[in-house]
Amino acid sequence: MTDRPVMGFLTDFGLDGAAATCRGVMLSIARDAQIVDICHTVAKYAIADGAYLLAASLPWLPVGVHVGVVDPGVGTERRPVAILTGRGDVLIGPDNGLVLPAADRLGGVVTARLIANPAWQLPLTSATFHGRDIFSPVAAHLALGAPFAEVGPELDATSLIRLEPARAVVAGEVLATSVTYVDSFGNVRLAGGHADLEAALGPALPGAELAVELDGGRLEPVTWQRTFGEVALGAHLLYEDSAGNLAIAVANGNAAATLGLEPADRVRIRRR
Amino acid sequence: MTDRPVMGFLTDFGLDGAAATCRGVMLSIARDAQIVDICHTVAKYAIADGAYLLAASLPWLPVGVHVGVVDPGVGTERRPVAILTGRGDVLIGPDNGLVLPAADRLGGVVTARLIANPAWQLPLTSATFHGRDIFSPVAAHLALGAPFAEVGPELDATSLIRLEPARAVVAGEVLATSVTYVDSFGNVRLAGGHADLEAALGPALPGAELAVELDGGRLEPVTWQRTFGEVALGAHLLYEDSAGNLAIAVANGNAAATLGLEPADRVRIRRR
Amino acid sequence: MTDRPVMGFLTDFGLDGAAATCRGVMLSIARDAQIVDICHTVAKYAIADGAYLLAASLPWLPVGVHVGVVDPGVGTERRPVAILTGRGDVLIGPDNGLVLPAADRLGGVVTARLIANPAWQLPLTSATFHGRDIFSPVAAHLALGAPFAEVGPELDATSLIRLEPARAVVAGEVLATSVTYVDSFGNVRLAGGHADLEAALGPALPGAELAVELDGGRLEPVTWQRTFGEVALGAHLLYEDSAGNLAIAVANGNAAATLGLEPADRVRIRRR
Repeated sequence: MTDRPVMGFLTDFGLDGAAATCRGVMLSIARDAQIVDICHTVAKYAIADGAYLLAASLPWLPVGVHVGVVDPGVGTERRPVAILTGRGDVLIGPDNGLVLPAADRLGGVVTARLIANPAWQLPLTSATFHGRDIFSPVAAHLALGAPFAEVGPELDATSLIRLEPARAVVAGEVLATSVTYVDSFGNVRLAGGHADLEAALGPALPGAELAVELDGGRLEPVTWQRTFGEVALGAHLLYEDSAGNLAIAVANGNAAATLGLEPADRVRIRRR
Repeated sequence: MTDRPVMGFLTDFGLDGAAATCRGVMLSIARDAQIVDICHTVAKYAIADGAYLLAASLPWLPVGVHVGVVDPGVGTERRPVAILTGRGDVLIGPDNGLVLPAADRLGGVVTARLIANPAWQLPLTSATFHGRDIFSPVAAHLALGAPFAEVGPELDATSLIRLEPARAVVAGEVLATSVTYVDSFGNVRLAGGHADLEAALGPALPGAELAVELDGGRLEPVTWQRTFGEVALGAHLLYEDSAGNLAIAVANGNAAATLGLEPADRVRIRRR
Repeated sequence: MTDRPVMGFLTDFGLDGAAATCRGVMLSIARDAQIVDICHTVAKYAIADGAYLLAASLPWLPVGVHVGVVDPGVGTERRPVAILTGRGDVLIGPDNGLVLPAADRLGGVVTARLIANPAWQLPLTSATFHGRDIFSPVAAHLALGAPFAEVGPELDATSLIRLEPARAVVAGEVLATSVTYVDSFGNVRLAGGHADLEAALGPALPGAELAVELDGGRLEPVTWQRTFGEVALGAHLLYEDSAGNLAIAVANGNAAATLGLEPADRVRIRRR
């Protein structure tokens, strides 16, 4: 680590002080840390949303020690873990599926350890705020350069809890997929990419007229395009998003609202 | 102060640029300040909410110069004050009760001063944005190491305006208390701790079946537990929060919404 | 630029990770940048709101390289531009009117350049996330001290797209103006200042009883005052805001909500 270690930080704590308390603990140990707040408005208890956002953003941050806390099981038997990745980052959080997709994007899990070193935790550990009492101080000690092996005993990486990943499946001339995330614009992110689309529908050129079939059978026309400004205001487009995955948007509008879609909803894409 | 002074910062300015303007003023003077944004979405004009959040978070930050601005009286006769605390922090803000509870948590008031040094304020002081024109530049000068005595004349600490503190009162076999804050999860923070509870109800072990009595007499069953995951999804629990105070939550839910509770509401806790 | 360059940053990306991805790109290049998040909750696609906020806040930040992204035309033919200002700042963003009002406040446009240097952009440029792929890395290279001339070819400054500015017009004994912004308090910011008001109405002393005429003819009484606390709770005041412009507020309330006003709405101010 350099003199100014980078610490990414994502929670569902909201904007009212709990994240700042954690930042205070980090800075009390690693005074020059460059903390990058990724998101603190993850939908409450939405582990999958948090996992999506960590995996989407962390590859763009410098190598660092990153903390994720969406943790409805705080204070119960769920394990606190630290994961060393192939790129050299360490990911800190509860073992509930939150940080593993990001590890996959950062070169995979090199070593996973149970967080168990009492010297790196706050002297009094509350039952409801492990972000402050465990995850933040452990991360700050690592950011300062403490050896990863001192976190605690090694864990079998295959024992880490993994969320069921969303997948795109070719079913005849239909691509069956599901919503992985709804971003703040209301753009609906889907599992699968352009190659999956073409495996189902054949070659798709810009302007191709497709349809999105929602649960219940409603069909919504969409045009395959590169970007929002290539359809009329208010029209739906299907595009490859900036992570290389399929997504549905409305030019200057909110597709999730117009289509009534939420994370994990199923969607089928076909030709019109 | 070190080369990278810490500056905590809390306002009700919202997220649309006013806080950034203040950060710009701070950095124009103290270029290497490590600014820790505590909260800028304090409910508008809610001095008690801001006071709660400063007192809850500042003890976890490194010693620094911290600014709080929830200031419906900006530009009127209310005094701008700077408070040196026992821990060595300086708290800057309007004299309306906002920063005093935090000072109590940081070793108490050592010296209070009226902010009056014109050299540390911006040349033109607006009537409506003292966060930018007075509080931020004064704090930044102090963060750079300027002597506290140069802020302005000393004030009698007992003259500082203090909000009426919420208290838990034992009334027979009932603990009468009130809501001190509702956090972003909807967890309802109460005055008083475990000792107060036991003074009213006798020994309370995990799993104890209690009831919360709301204004109007409605009784809501709650279980005394350590943490959220120890009750069924949707069930209410009473717990000792991470600051050592009583609080009501719903596992994976929003207790303030289900109970209709807001800050300052009265609550009575009894056995079922 | 110093060792710790300042980078102001404003978007309509919301709070869920896209801005953090851009910060990650900036820090991967300019590791010690002091990033000042100005606002990421600009109303979606609201170029005029973003332009207002950049112009209002950037003059209070240290000289730096600042990025603005409210960009409904991302990936289409609209130009990415970099503007060197008289104060020495560089403004980076889409050529859609977003950054030009801020340039006016920072000493005006010295040189404008098309962003075209492929070496400063990410190797793969998506069609929908130029904040990450173009604007952030270009800004970070400039923040590190790279020569401005290497951004790309010079542009005729008069070719830059400029939003129609709002103006206050004296019409007999009425000041006809319009809403430039509604802040998070609901304070309604207007075009024109105290001098415009007096040009229309004659001398206006604190306490002067005026009226705001809304579209449709509704008249709302307002008092000309210095600050919020000088009218009764719930009463409307007209005041000169902290930028020297006219504004309407309600003491401890939300004037935009009570008056039904939005950006670009027309307002006429007269005596009662």
